[in-house]
Amino acid sequence: MNRNFLFFLTISFVILINIKAQVYRKEFYIPDFNGYKTLKCDFHIHTIFSDGYVWPTVRVQEAWMEGLDAIAFTDHIEYRPFKKDVISDHNRAFEIAQELGQRSNLIVIRGTEITRRKPMGHLNAIFTTDNNAMDLKDSIQALSVANQQKAFVFWNHPSNEYGKWSAIQDNLFQKGLFQGIEVVNSNTYYPDAQQWCIDKNLTMMGTSDVHNLITFDYDLSRNGHRTITLVFTKDRSQEGIKEALISRRTAICWNNKIIGREEFLRPIFRNSISVAGIKLMKNGKGIYSGILFIKNISGLSFDLKTSGTYGGLSLPEKIYVPPVSTVAVSFDYQNTFKGVSKIEFPAEVLNFLAGPGKAMHESLLINLNIE
Amino acid sequence: MNRNFLFFLTISFVILINIKAQVYRKEFYIPDFNGYKTLKCDFHIHTIFSDGYVWPTVRVQEAWMEGLDAIAFTDHIEYRPFKKDVISDHNRAFEIAQELGQRSNLIVIRGTEITRRKPMGHLNAIFTTDNNAMDLKDSIQALSVANQQKAFVFWNHPSNEYGKWSAIQDNLFQKGLFQGIEVVNSNTYYPDAQQWCIDKNLTMMGTSDVHNLITFDYDLSRNGHRTITLVFTKDRSQEGIKEALISRRTAICWNNKIIGREEFLRPIFRNSISVAGIKLMKNGKGIYSGILFIKNISGLSFDLKTSGTYGGLSLPEKIYVPPVSTVAVSFDYQNTFKGVSKIEFPAEVLNFLAGPGKAMHESLLINLNIE
Amino acid sequence: MNRNFLFFLTISFVILINIKAQVYRKEFYIPDFNGYKTLKCDFHIHTIFSDGYVWPTVRVQEAWMEGLDAIAFTDHIEYRPFKKDVISDHNRAFEIAQELGQRSNLIVIRGTEITRRKPMGHLNAIFTTDNNAMDLKDSIQALSVANQQKAFVFWNHPSNEYGKWSAIQDNLFQKGLFQGIEVVNSNTYYPDAQQWCIDKNLTMMGTSDVHNLITFDYDLSRNGHRTITLVFTKDRSQEGIKEALISRRTAICWNNKIIGREEFLRPIFRNSISVAGIKLMKNGKGIYSGILFIKNISGLSFDLKTSGTYGGLSLPEKIYVPPVSTVAVSFDYQNTFKGVSKIEFPAEVLNFLAGPGKAMHESLLINLNIE
Amino acid sequence: MNRNFLFFLTISFVILINIKAQVYRKEFYIPDFNGYKTLKCDFHIHTIFSDGYVWPTVRVQEAWMEGLDAIAFTDHIEYRPFKKDVISDHNRAFEIAQELGQRSNLIVIRGTEITRRKPMGHLNAIFTTDNNAMDLKDSIQALSVANQQKAFVFWNHPSNEYGKWSAIQDNLFQKGLFQGIEVVNSNTYYPDAQQWCIDKNLTMMGTSDVHNLITFDYDLSRNGHRTITLVFTKDRSQEGIKEALISRRTAICWNNKIIGREEFLRPIFRNSISVAGIKLMKNGKGIYSGILFIKNISGLSFDLKTSGTYGGLSLPEKIYVPPVSTVAVSFDYQNTFKGVSKIEFPAEVLNFLAGPGKAMHESLLINLNIE
Repeated sequence: MNRNFLFFLTISFVILINIKAQVYRKEFYIPDFNGYKTLKCDFHIHTIFSDGYVWPTVRVQEAWMEGLDAIAFTDHIEYRPFKKDVISDHNRAFEIAQELGQRSNLIVIRGTEITRRKPMGHLNAIFTTDNNAMDLKDSIQALSVANQQKAFVFWNHPSNEYGKWSAIQDNLFQKGLFQGIEVVNSNTYYPDAQQWCIDKNLTMMGTSDVHNLITFDYDLSRNGHRTITLVFTKDRSQEGIKEALISRRTAICWNNKIIGREEFLRPIFRNSISVAGIKLMKNGKGIYSGILFIKNISGLSFDLKTSGTYGGLSLPEKIYVPPVSTVAVSFDYQNTFKGVSKIEFPAEVLNFLAGPGKAMHESLLINLNIE
Repeated sequence: MNRNFLFFLTISFVILINIKAQVYRKEFYIPDFNGYKTLKCDFHIHTIFSDGYVWPTVRVQEAWMEGLDAIAFTDHIEYRPFKKDVISDHNRAFEIAQELGQRSNLIVIRGTEITRRKPMGHLNAIFTTDNNAMDLKDSIQALSVANQQKAFVFWNHPSNEYGKWSAIQDNLFQKGLFQGIEVVNSNTYYPDAQQWCIDKNLTMMGTSDVHNLITFDYDLSRNGHRTITLVFTKDRSQEGIKEALISRRTAICWNNKIIGREEFLRPIFRNSISVAGIKLMKNGKGIYSGILFIKNISGLSFDLKTSGTYGGLSLPEKIYVPPVSTVAVSFDYQNTFKGVSKIEFPAEVLNFLAGPGKAMHESLLINLNIE
Repeated sequence: MNRNFLFFLTISFVILINIKAQVYRKEFYIPDFNGYKTLKCDFHIHTIFSDGYVWPTVRVQEAWMEGLDAIAFTDHIEYRPFKKDVISDHNRAFEIAQELGQRSNLIVIRGTEITRRKPMGHLNAIFTTDNNAMDLKDSIQALSVANQQKAFVFWNHPSNEYGKWSAIQDNLFQKGLFQGIEVVNSNTYYPDAQQWCIDKNLTMMGTSDVHNLITFDYDLSRNGHRTITLVFTKDRSQEGIKEALISRRTAICWNNKIIGREEFLRPIFRNSISVAGIKLMKNGKGIYSGILFIKNISGLSFDLKTSGTYGGLSLPEKIYVPPVSTVAVSFDYQNTFKGVSKIEFPAEVLNFLAGPGKAMHESLLINLNIE
Repeated sequence: MNRNFLFFLTISFVILINIKAQVYRKEFYIPDFNGYKTLKCDFHIHTIFSDGYVWPTVRVQEAWMEGLDAIAFTDHIEYRPFKKDVISDHNRAFEIAQELGQRSNLIVIRGTEITRRKPMGHLNAIFTTDNNAMDLKDSIQALSVANQQKAFVFWNHPSNEYGKWSAIQDNLFQKGLFQGIEVVNSNTYYPDAQQWCIDKNLTMMGTSDVHNLITFDYDLSRNGHRTITLVFTKDRSQEGIKEALISRRTAICWNNKIIGREEFLRPIFRNSISVAGIKLMKNGKGIYSGILFIKNISGLSFDLKTSGTYGGLSLPEKIYVPPVSTVAVSFDYQNTFKGVSKIEFPAEVLNFLAGPGKAMHESLLINLNIE
């Protein structure tokens, strides 16, 4: 149509507005690798059966909508501020949630938070068989019972407030009474804890520790999600998750960062990112130039810092790759080489932390076809 | 800068992402008028003390964040599926929420839902003094006690499922045992109920009847909010709200619609919308033409259907005015009149329902200054 | 952590805000099928070389960002309101855009809009070799030249304003001077045109006819995109597209609707939607019930209307499936049959229009495993 | 309604999706003060008449939609890469845009960019009367002509790339040939330039320097907008703007920061933010505690850093206040004082930069009523 007479002003349109929220599961893709399935899990969750503010089924629904694979209920044994109104024993939250979990294909795990003062602090036991059995005065004994139940035990939010690594942790560690540490709890990252996991060969955990609504703690729009532990399992089951936790095959996904062991971070990167091969053409100024397309099939974002120039090829130093998208970056090539060239262009993945403050080093694999 | 060498491709940028959700109160403006304050209220809310899924304080927080002024707790007396786990009496939800309400400057009202089978169905009593006193076998007696407590009583979701107006409602109405009806419950609008309120001089109510999380029922982004009753009060207090309810000074705000009595809808429209005066200029084809600016200072949107041409002036037939914005619409003017002209251009406000399916008729007041 | 003392109020958080827009290609997945690639194309686009408002390269950037595969430049020959300022011939827009297209891996097609008054109206010729050769007084001759250039010619926005099917279209059709019709132009759908394409075996086209910025006509957030023609090609190339257009292998994607021939709509549906098999369990009331998970791997949404009850199975009548998500719907099963059952549950896909106002009939393939 | 049988799963809802983008003006409120009107202006804009990519009217539409009051067209005189296709003189962009500006109530200003190599770099002259008269070889002469035309002249993007303050700037400054400097150009902030403006009493400018589409450079969702100069004028007119620029009454609004002279930043803060008076109550632990409500009526956000504890009152150290919202922060009060107390609680406004890296110091005015 001709619309020269039309700026923005002739017609005004009716907008139809959403009448209801849609309750659905948002699929959020993080690649599998090496035969492992990448499961998204939250192992630290509260309900009204301790100091949380919701009924256990709400936690199943929240997790299902966010695209999670598994959650563990970990109400405090020793701290139940609502007990005047909310009675029942320490297994109740799990028991209530279990059926909806089965129906929803979300793995629901029994657990509990053993809650002591500094210096011991709080520890979660998950895959327990009876939480009531941990309702004991003696901390060591409570942890021992958890381990007798074949639970996986990890230490929560190691910090000045709740206690950092001290003699008692040495003791627990010597006795093998815990197997992992929270490296991220809610929106707090503990770099120390990451180092301890590396040094002592413990499992790195990331949890929401949610008490109120998930949406009060996290902005779920724009690919946002809660703090989760990625668990790299042989199959999608309770047993699969437990085996992987014991084998330390985890990473933490929090605030657009992946925190964990390099051996797991690297294949996630490589199964997410690819660079399209490009045919070089001379631009107006007689320089070989072109556009590099970097494609990201995952729901993660990537913050890359390249070496700028390498092998005659110049790229921007900072490249941000959003989720499920392709970015295009201009480049120049100043070698005299012709034919096909394969360049492994060095880049740091700033949001993949292989150690405390230590970004993972990687390469962009680029095929150049030069006329 | 010169950027001719730059399409979109030279630089890629780092995006900083929200690390946390922000819990805050979103101010959502609906105008006051005629000395009345326009309060936003939800008088039908459930918690774990009947068949809701959250602790009472969550309801205060949800309402505060959405910009509401008042909420009533109306747990069922007769239906408490969680009573095996959640004990305490029928006043408990209110008692728990009250302090946070006071601290948050959100008016928290005691109430209860008297829950009977068809044909009577469910009725809410709010501003009660003791909900336990309504725990009676006899329905009429329960409602009588509510009225003795000086409660305001309204009939919920009149429908085939829960009962429509029948002999029993006639009886309750004759006895003066209820004063209002839900015209909108959650996302369902009952046009019949609107007509009954008009015919029988009852108060029109709109409520969320929320059981699970508010965000499961409503999309709060893009100016979305729950179903609310607008109450036009002499002051912002429990007493102010009660007096206004008894005096039927309400309207319902649901799904971008305002439903209620024309006497309240009209001033809301006029205090929201204004048209900027415009100086007419001849366009290239020798016709007087121009741009009309319609400004909306409220958080509501407006769906206008104009008469197209009136008094020589031609406007688009459909004009949508988003919240807190100005729209620009082109017009032609084909009269020979010169000087200043004041036109009251007829328009229906399609989303202001003064009766069942009956859009409010209004005018756009336009000042033309014609050369 | 214990947070009983904490409602929403103790801590306030710093939000980091985007400092720059991110220019990137949003990948928007529509499935391939039967060996055909599904390409997203817009064959009707204007620039400042006729009555559009942007330089040709902007059109390449807009299309790339939206995830398109191909665009055609179709400036008017006969209508160039900016010719006092913008000179150059009718091939210029294409020539300017071509290099950025190559560099961006976006297929850029030369074309033009032959622009006549009613009853003939406007026709687009794409895959032309020289647009200047169509700058002729005689309409039939101009179209003949386009066809001699092996162009693909389609009739634009058939409507009261620009002309509907009449004697002249009969004549052009007899002579084979056009091969397709716009069934959707910008945000207007012409059901008549869809019927004509079915009756006369013509290619169905959907185009943006963009003059100003794409974002002025379409809301690109929330999976929004412009009106496009889906072209089902043997390969991703100009020739591939042309062969598919001639063979009528197209559908239109507009406003969350897919409009086209059933033979193409059906495999798009089947390659997008799957239903997870489910094991039936009796619920508390002794009825077999469960949750059906419907997964959508495409970027499309689906509006399903089921038959409600079929083969003893009851589903909701309305099911909305958002893009890249899973929805969960409750069901009851009231047969006495046990074992494994495969049900083809009838459903209309309301937003897949196989004819004017004619929703496609499909089935949800459900595997039931009944205890 | 009873919904105990219902988790999220029984009903699935139809979502209505926007069929069209809505073109409208988003009102974005920044307070006026001291009798001055706060106007939002962008004085550095390109079109296809130099190296921009859009027709001049698009710039009016973009600015109108963003809520701006004024824009200046500043195409390069010396750099016109499209001149083979786009002819016409240096006044043309302004002339084309002028009428739509008048009709849209957007102030459109004639200007040009005088574009020289380092060390002089680029300078904008706005409020010119004939841009062609500046098409001169001699730079000083070109600037002299601009000043003879009573233009307001400012120096653009002072940087290593385009030149920083050197002998030539000294010379131009001595001669009074420029009156302002860009402190922010597009998304780059030049702290040096802010200091130079303070030291030499020049006007601080912030501009978009837009070449392509505004949405390519800025994310306009979530209260985003381009880099603008806030101009504090006696009236809303070309003359009003010019007088204010000459009098240095400006600030820059970029990336959620306000950059400028403290005398203007302070009243913007005070007319945006207010703290509701609060009645103190003892909490369960016998400590006076409460909730402080901080209300922001502006479209700006505020990043506050408080002194933590002051006068017995403890507040969070970090408080973020989003646009048009209220935040609630918990506090304790540990004085023995009773009655009414007025506290001026010290806080830095981290995103209000009164000097390079120098956050503005302010107070939150708090009325305490202690029982």
